[in-house]
Amino acid sequence: MRTGAILIEDLYNELEFWVPYYRLLEAGVELTIVGPKAGIAYQSKHGIPVTSQAAARDLNGTEFDLVVIPGGYAPDRMRRDTGMVNLVRDAYHGGKLIAFICHAGWLAISAGILQGKKVTGFFAIKDDLVNAGAEYLDQPVVRDGNLISSRTPDDLPDFCRTIVSALDE
Amino acid sequence: MRTGAILIEDLYNELEFWVPYYRLLEAGVELTIVGPKAGIAYQSKHGIPVTSQAAARDLNGTEFDLVVIPGGYAPDRMRRDTGMVNLVRDAYHGGKLIAFICHAGWLAISAGILQGKKVTGFFAIKDDLVNAGAEYLDQPVVRDGNLISSRTPDDLPDFCRTIVSALDE
Repeated sequence: MRTGAILIEDLYNELEFWVPYYRLLEAGVELTIVGPKAGIAYQSKHGIPVTSQAAARDLNGTEFDLVVIPGGYAPDRMRRDTGMVNLVRDAYHGGKLIAFICHAGWLAISAGILQGKKVTGFFAIKDDLVNAGAEYLDQPVVRDGNLISSRTPDDLPDFCRTIVSALDE
Repeated sequence: MRTGAILIEDLYNELEFWVPYYRLLEAGVELTIVGPKAGIAYQSKHGIPVTSQAAARDLNGTEFDLVVIPGGYAPDRMRRDTGMVNLVRDAYHGGKLIAFICHAGWLAISAGILQGKKVTGFFAIKDDLVNAGAEYLDQPVVRDGNLISSRTPDDLPDFCRTIVSALDE
């Protein structure tokens, strides 16, 4: 059984949360919905709630095979929480997969894991990714080691296919 | 290349549209978003728009390998349009796959394709399914020949897996 954490905060992008969420369940991944606090109904941009099952500060990133970070403006909120930042950093350094899409690169930046790495993301945060030491590629999905990144919801088929394939390695 | 029509109308359920939509694109299915009219931005229950690419009345259901019908209250609106009803009926009688979830059984009822068939759906429409001659099973996914049905968004992993598997036959 593979395990994954999927991160949540207010103003998350619906498609970038729910599409990987159900795709990974289909692939047999045991998912935990992780926010800054447990048991909070975080609201999407259009008001669709997702209730967190665990608080990041109570977990260690190395417990999971995979951490998925959806976009929207949620990553701007996630990076304010030390527990969320540490979860991503620890998972990365433990060799776990980190998959982020759209604005979610912001959290990867704050986790300090992008220096010298090839990534993509929403074009509005390209400067932030480059200033964090990453090489920005304008592609539907970019994989560099255990980092997997995509740009927008239109990239979700490539994003999901790459995550599922990487888990099967 | 496999082809599919995914039907749309106002008040569609976001998860039941977008999760199969991106999952089928990932599987290499060429999808057409079909509504009663072409070029209309139909709104989800929470206000997420989907623009139709074609009008059902301009198509024949047998052009597609698969027709997917999302739920929400959209199916109550879809069944008012002769073109949408005929698309499903013609696809069914042409031996194409018909996949419906939640309240989408309403459109299958109006297409007259459920007599003697095993199906599932949201529990609120169980009586309608039974009155249309179907046998209702309370399961995450039910397949009977070229009919595939599920109950709620929680069933999406089973729903998607079964559709993709059926297309591969």
